[in-house]
Amino acid sequence: MSAFLPRGRHLLADFHGVAAACLGDVAAIEALLRTAADAAGATPVAGHFHPFGPGLGVTGVLLLQESHISIHTWPEHGFAAVDVFMCGAARPERAVQVIAAALCPVSVNCRDMPRGQSPSPT
Amino acid sequence: MSAFLPRGRHLLADFHGVAAACLGDVAAIEALLRTAADAAGATPVAGHFHPFGPGLGVTGVLLLQESHISIHTWPEHGFAAVDVFMCGAARPERAVQVIAAALCPVSVNCRDMPRGQSPSPT
Repeated sequence: MSAFLPRGRHLLADFHGVAAACLGDVAAIEALLRTAADAAGATPVAGHFHPFGPGLGVTGVLLLQESHISIHTWPEHGFAAVDVFMCGAARPERAVQVIAAALCPVSVNCRDMPRGQSPSPT
Repeated sequence: MSAFLPRGRHLLADFHGVAAACLGDVAAIEALLRTAADAAGATPVAGHFHPFGPGLGVTGVLLLQESHISIHTWPEHGFAAVDVFMCGAARPERAVQVIAAALCPVSVNCRDMPRGQSPSPT
């Protein structure tokens, strides 16, 4: 087993105060996440986006060679929870910037969490 | 827009020192995440699991009514990065326990992050 540890950054971005119209259109949300992945320099390997029904939210994920981008939306509360988890040379903050520019939230709570960097005990 | 805010817990679990044989079998990993979701009281709505090829890792996600469970594995480094993000009454720590019991890691770094709890400015 290699002593090298995979290293990644996982951005947890909570978007508050988003217009409901931005949060229920499953095709638009999938297109937005694909644009965000491209902006970050990441490569999708698969995607799945699930609408919960008229007036309700969307849950979806873009699986990447570098890990994933996910989104869960609540149009009725103007809220979206986005994760951007990327390993390697990709730039996750660029994906968050693209999503923020499209959703125009009143506020964003974005936390930048390191992944894979705690060595195993020897 | 409702003043109520969705609340969830997002567990970021990094598993170190896992046997490679546990980290490359895409069917076994999907079955494990489905068992973990059930243990947490969560309901899958879709899943997608992608193998990167012989001897390489798996990236996958189970989309839930309550949000998602994702996994990214590196058999060559004995490492798996797992997310368990659940809203409502589900118990994400139970999913992490199920996954840990199956992967038998040497160590786990698990962080419990609240989601959706920062109110928008008024």
